[in-house]
Amino acid sequence: MIKVGIIGSTGYAGAELVRLLMNHRDAEIVWYGSRSYVDQQYADIYGNFFELVDEKCLADDLDALAEKADVIFTATPQGFCASKVTEGLLGKVKVIDLSADYRIRDAARYEEWYGIHHPTPEFLEEAVYGLPELKRDAVASARLVANPGCFPTCSLLAVIPAMKSGLIDKQSVIIDAKSGVTGAGRGAKVQNLYCEVNETVKAYGVTTHRHTPEIEDYLGEAAGEAVTVQFTPHLVPMNRGILVTAYASLTADTDEETIRKFYEEAYADEPFVRLLPPGRVPETRWVRGSNYADVNIKADRRTGRLIMMGAIDNIGKGAAGQAVQNMNIMFGLDEREGLMTVPLSV
Amino acid sequence: MIKVGIIGSTGYAGAELVRLLMNHRDAEIVWYGSRSYVDQQYADIYGNFFELVDEKCLADDLDALAEKADVIFTATPQGFCASKVTEGLLGKVKVIDLSADYRIRDAARYEEWYGIHHPTPEFLEEAVYGLPELKRDAVASARLVANPGCFPTCSLLAVIPAMKSGLIDKQSVIIDAKSGVTGAGRGAKVQNLYCEVNETVKAYGVTTHRHTPEIEDYLGEAAGEAVTVQFTPHLVPMNRGILVTAYASLTADTDEETIRKFYEEAYADEPFVRLLPPGRVPETRWVRGSNYADVNIKADRRTGRLIMMGAIDNIGKGAAGQAVQNMNIMFGLDEREGLMTVPLSV
Amino acid sequence: MIKVGIIGSTGYAGAELVRLLMNHRDAEIVWYGSRSYVDQQYADIYGNFFELVDEKCLADDLDALAEKADVIFTATPQGFCASKVTEGLLGKVKVIDLSADYRIRDAARYEEWYGIHHPTPEFLEEAVYGLPELKRDAVASARLVANPGCFPTCSLLAVIPAMKSGLIDKQSVIIDAKSGVTGAGRGAKVQNLYCEVNETVKAYGVTTHRHTPEIEDYLGEAAGEAVTVQFTPHLVPMNRGILVTAYASLTADTDEETIRKFYEEAYADEPFVRLLPPGRVPETRWVRGSNYADVNIKADRRTGRLIMMGAIDNIGKGAAGQAVQNMNIMFGLDEREGLMTVPLSV
Amino acid sequence: MIKVGIIGSTGYAGAELVRLLMNHRDAEIVWYGSRSYVDQQYADIYGNFFELVDEKCLADDLDALAEKADVIFTATPQGFCASKVTEGLLGKVKVIDLSADYRIRDAARYEEWYGIHHPTPEFLEEAVYGLPELKRDAVASARLVANPGCFPTCSLLAVIPAMKSGLIDKQSVIIDAKSGVTGAGRGAKVQNLYCEVNETVKAYGVTTHRHTPEIEDYLGEAAGEAVTVQFTPHLVPMNRGILVTAYASLTADTDEETIRKFYEEAYADEPFVRLLPPGRVPETRWVRGSNYADVNIKADRRTGRLIMMGAIDNIGKGAAGQAVQNMNIMFGLDEREGLMTVPLSV
Repeated sequence: MIKVGIIGSTGYAGAELVRLLMNHRDAEIVWYGSRSYVDQQYADIYGNFFELVDEKCLADDLDALAEKADVIFTATPQGFCASKVTEGLLGKVKVIDLSADYRIRDAARYEEWYGIHHPTPEFLEEAVYGLPELKRDAVASARLVANPGCFPTCSLLAVIPAMKSGLIDKQSVIIDAKSGVTGAGRGAKVQNLYCEVNETVKAYGVTTHRHTPEIEDYLGEAAGEAVTVQFTPHLVPMNRGILVTAYASLTADTDEETIRKFYEEAYADEPFVRLLPPGRVPETRWVRGSNYADVNIKADRRTGRLIMMGAIDNIGKGAAGQAVQNMNIMFGLDEREGLMTVPLSV
Repeated sequence: MIKVGIIGSTGYAGAELVRLLMNHRDAEIVWYGSRSYVDQQYADIYGNFFELVDEKCLADDLDALAEKADVIFTATPQGFCASKVTEGLLGKVKVIDLSADYRIRDAARYEEWYGIHHPTPEFLEEAVYGLPELKRDAVASARLVANPGCFPTCSLLAVIPAMKSGLIDKQSVIIDAKSGVTGAGRGAKVQNLYCEVNETVKAYGVTTHRHTPEIEDYLGEAAGEAVTVQFTPHLVPMNRGILVTAYASLTADTDEETIRKFYEEAYADEPFVRLLPPGRVPETRWVRGSNYADVNIKADRRTGRLIMMGAIDNIGKGAAGQAVQNMNIMFGLDEREGLMTVPLSV
Repeated sequence: MIKVGIIGSTGYAGAELVRLLMNHRDAEIVWYGSRSYVDQQYADIYGNFFELVDEKCLADDLDALAEKADVIFTATPQGFCASKVTEGLLGKVKVIDLSADYRIRDAARYEEWYGIHHPTPEFLEEAVYGLPELKRDAVASARLVANPGCFPTCSLLAVIPAMKSGLIDKQSVIIDAKSGVTGAGRGAKVQNLYCEVNETVKAYGVTTHRHTPEIEDYLGEAAGEAVTVQFTPHLVPMNRGILVTAYASLTADTDEETIRKFYEEAYADEPFVRLLPPGRVPETRWVRGSNYADVNIKADRRTGRLIMMGAIDNIGKGAAGQAVQNMNIMFGLDEREGLMTVPLSV
Repeated sequence: MIKVGIIGSTGYAGAELVRLLMNHRDAEIVWYGSRSYVDQQYADIYGNFFELVDEKCLADDLDALAEKADVIFTATPQGFCASKVTEGLLGKVKVIDLSADYRIRDAARYEEWYGIHHPTPEFLEEAVYGLPELKRDAVASARLVANPGCFPTCSLLAVIPAMKSGLIDKQSVIIDAKSGVTGAGRGAKVQNLYCEVNETVKAYGVTTHRHTPEIEDYLGEAAGEAVTVQFTPHLVPMNRGILVTAYASLTADTDEETIRKFYEEAYADEPFVRLLPPGRVPETRWVRGSNYADVNIKADRRTGRLIMMGAIDNIGKGAAGQAVQNMNIMFGLDEREGLMTVPLSV
C-alpha cells in the first residue's frame, strides 16, 4: 500500500486527488495538507467525503510528511514546491508536483513568464515532465515529476502527432483553448464569483498566458526545433473541462487519412487517449471526471490547414488524474489503477 | 456474473445504469435496449462510452431478452413494463422496473393519477417497492421490484423517521422539492431546451404531480394511517439532483435532539443514507453521481414545526443507483457493489 | 431633473440602479459611491457601461452628497444607513434605503435577528416601508423610505390578498423561496464562487433567515394580528430571480375562484403586479430585468390548502426597480417612468 | 408610426424583435407571424409579454401582411424568404430578411454551402447587406435588406479595419468563435436539450459552417481581393452572446498602436461599436440584451500575429438589434431609436 501525502488538498485539484485515490486499491492517503483549513475536518470542506474521510487537515509541512509518505503530491501555488525540494527530501520520498515549478527546462524562461525567482534550478534537469504519452519510461524511474499543466496536456496530445508527421508548418501553430472555471482555482476573488462568470465568455492572458512556454518546449521537442506558438485561453461557464482547437498550415497536398495514421500510431496503445472516428468532434462532457483525452483532426483542403481538437477534464487528465497515472508508473503498478471509472457525461 | 438487460438504455436513467454496471464486478450487460436508436452504436449516442462499450442498441424486446438475461431493468415510459410482465416472463428472469407501473398498490389510484389503464394489476401484490431502507428483506426474495420514483425516494428518506416518531402531525406534511433537468427525460421537447430552462426556476405539476400518491402510500404505511401530503416539485437549472425541504407541525413540546434519535436509529446501519451533523444542510452537489441520500432535520420551536431535508442524485439513488442496489440485494451480493464511488462534487 | 446619489453603486443592486436610472427621463446620477473602488472609472468595474458612464467612483460620503443630490439610494450593508441618518440629512435630501435598517418596526426585533445595534431607532416611526402596493400614499410624502427586502417583496405580494381574504388560517403560512445568486452580493467569498454554486441547490438560513421578521410584520398587518411565518430560502444556480411557493391551510370549504377575486381586486390597478391566468405558474425568466411581480394561486381541495406563488427579479422589483418606483412616487412622477422595459426572458 | 410585420415571431430572434420594437417610439407591430403557434396568444408562448402584448399569432403570410405593413421582418429558416419575394411584394413593403437568403452575392455559392436551391437569384443584386458600419448609405435606400448572420457580424466588425490597414496577410485569417445556445434556434431537438448542452463545450460545423462564405465575401470586399478564411464556431453553455477571437499574420514590423488607429478611425462615429481601451478583452456579458459590438486588438510581436476580438449579443447586434437598426436607417429615423437600453450585464 503506497502511503500518499497531499499538499494543497483543499483546492480543486487536491480534492480530485482525494476522490481518485479513494478508489485506488494500492494507495492510502496519510496526510491531507492545507494552508487555510488546518485542524478542520476535511469532510467539512468537501461534503461529498462525509462519512468517507474522517481526517483533519494538517499543515503543508513537507519535511514532516516525508517521514510518513512514499509519495507527495504538491497541488500548490507556483514557487512553493521549488522552495521545498532538497536532495534530502528526494532521498526519502518521491514528489509529483502539480505546479509549474519544474515543467520548463530553462529557469530563466520560467522566471520571465512566471515573474518569480526559481530557488532550486539544480533539480530542473532531473525532473521529468509527467506526460506519460511522451515520457513514460523516464517517469518510471523518476524521483521528481513535473505534472503537466492542463492546457499543455490537452494541446500537446492534440498537436504532437501532426508535428511529428512533418506535414504541417512547424511555426504555424495557433491554439485556441476553452476552460471550465475550476481552472481558476478556489481562491476568494470577485472575478470568479458565480455572477461574474455565469452567462458569459471571454479570452484571458492573451499573448501572455504562462502555459505558452511549456507548450512550446514540448512541441519544439516533437518538432526537432524551437517553435513559437500562439496560445489563447478562454473562460467558459462550466465547472470542468478543457477544449483545444488548434490550427496549423499544411505543408503538402496531403489528406486527412494520411495524417490520421500518425495519430493512430501514436495512440494505438495509449489507455487514456481516445482518437475519435473521422468527423466526430471532442466534447468536454464525454471525458468529465475521467482521465481520458479525446482527440480528433480535420483537414481543410480548401484553406490548406489542419484543425486539431482535444478535450480533457482539466482537473482529471489535466491535473489529478494524470498525477495518479504518473504515480502508478513510478511505483510499477498498472497505469490505469484507480482511473478506469466511466466519464460522468451528464 | 449476472447477465443484465436494459430496456430503455438510451434515456438518462438507462445511461446511468450502463455507467454504474460498467464498474460492477459481478454484472455484465448483455442487451442495450432502445426504441429510437436500434442498430446504432451505443457509444455514438453517449460519447463517454467510446472505446468502453462496443455494442449496438437492440430493440426493446423483453421476451427475447428473457432468454439471455438474469435480470431486466425497464427504464421506460409508464405503462410499458406493465404491458409486458407475465407469469412466464417472471419465471425466467427478474425484473426491476424503473417506471411507476408497480409502485402504487391500488390500480385504480394509479389509473387516476397517471391517466392510463393498468393492464396487469394482478402483479401489484407481488411487486416489491424497492426502497431498501424500507423493504430490504422483501426485495431480497422478489421477482418483480418497483424501483421508487426520484421524488418519493428523497421525500420518504427525509420524512419517514419523523413520521414514525409520533412527534409530528401526520396530516401536516408539506414537501417542497427541487429537481435538476435530467428528471424531465431526454425527449425532444421545446420546454426542455437549454434556453427554456437555463436561468430560471418554476414549480410544475402543482397539486397534481404523479409522485404524490406514491409518497402518500409509503408515508401512510409509516404513519399507520392514510395520510394526505402536499407535494410541489420545482425545476432548477442543473443537470442532476433533487433537494427536498419538507415541513410538518410538531405535536408536542419536543426538541431536535429527541427527534434526531429516530433518524440516528433508522439510518445507523444504512450504507447509503448519511444523516448530517446538526446545523448542516444537504446540498445536491455532495451526492452527485452517487447512491447517497443526505438527510437532516431542523426543529423550529418558534413556529412549532419540524423541517426535514434530503438530497439525492435523481438518476443515482433516485433511479439507476437504487436499481443496482436492489439488484445486489436480489442476487445476494454486497449491497454496495458498484456503488461506492465518491460523489463528484464539482 | 432629479439629482440622484447612489451609495454602494458597485454592488449588484447599485449597478442595477445605475442601469435603470440611465433609462429614466427625469433623473440624473450625480454620485457613484463606493467603498472599494474609489477613484476608479465606474465603467472599468461594469463594462456594460463603457462609453455610457464616464464617471469615477466617489467615497460613500452621505454628507457631501446631501449637498448635491435630491435623493440618495443606500445600497449598503446593514447598519450603514442607520448610522448616517440625521434630522439634518433628511432636511436636505430624501433617502431610499435598500438595506434592512428601517424595515422592521421594532428596534429590539431588528437587533435580535440582525445581531447588530440599531443606532437611530428614533427614525423607525417616520420611515415608510416602500412596498407601493401597500403603502403608496405614505411613500408619496416620505423623507425616508425603507425599501423592502427581495424575499419579503415577493412573499408579501403573493400572500397578502389571501391573508386579507379571511379564508386562510393566518398562522399556517409556510414560505419556501428560491433565489438567484446575485442575492448573495458581490463580496469575494469562497461560498459564492462559480464552482461552489453551479450545478447544486441548497437551503440556507433555515429557521433563522433575517427576512423572516420583515415578512411577519407586514403579513401581520394584513392579518390584523401578529403572525408567525415559516420561511426557508434556497440558493439556485442562476444570476437573477426569486420564486416564492407559499402554503396555507384553507379555513373554509372555499374554492380558487373565490380567493382569486381578492387577488384580482388587489392588483387590478397595479402597474407592476401581474396576476396570471388560472393554471399558469410564475417563472423567474418572465420577469428578468424588470420591475414586474408575477403572482398566481392554486387551491387544493384534496389537501385543504392554498398554494400561493410569486416571481420577481430580486434586483429588480426586489431591490433597484422598486427603489426607482418609490423615487417616482416620492417625486410625483409617473410611477412607471424608467421601468417599462420588457423583461429579457432569454 | 411604422407598421411592422414579423414573420417567424416565435423564434428567439423573432421574440427579440418584439421586445425591441415594444420600446421603439416610431414602430408598431401589426402582425405576429408564426408557423407553429397560429391562433395562440403570443404572451402564452413568451410569458414576459403577459399584459404587454394582447395579440394572437397569425400565419406566416407575407402577401396578406404586405397590405398592412410598411416593413416585414422575416426571421425564418433559409429558403423561406427567397421563395416569397417578388417585385410586387417589394413594390408594397420593405423587407428585412434575417435569414441567409440574400447575404451571399453568388447564388451558386449559396446553393453549394446551404445545400438548397435559390428560387429568386434575380434579387441578389438589389439586396443590400445590412451591416450599417459597411453599407449605411445603401441600406438607407434599400427595399430589400439581407440582415447579416451573427458570426459574420461579429467577425467582420473585429477584422475589417485590420484587413483594410494592409498590415495583415489577407489570406491568413483564422476565426475561432464561441456562441450561446439561442443561436441554435428554438426547434425541439435532442442536441439542444438542457442536459445535452449544459456543462460542456464543443466545436461544430468544423470547416463547413455556412457563415464562412458570408464572412469571406465581405472580408474579401475589404481586402480588395478574394480571401479564404478558416472559421470554427463553438457552442458554449449560455443563452446569449458571441465571442470572436481572430488571428492573422502581421506583414510588417508594425505595432499595436499603428493598427489601433485604423480601428479608431473606422469606429469613431459608430454608435454601436465600442473599441475597448488597450489591454481590455471583450466579454459577452457586457453587451447582453443590447446592440453593441465590443471590439479590441492585441498585437503579439513575439509571434508576429495580430489577435482581433469581438463580442456581440447574437440575437441583438447579431440579429434583431441590427434588423431594427437597419429599419431605422431605411425609414430615416435616428439610427439608435429603440436600441439605447443599457446591456444587462448580470
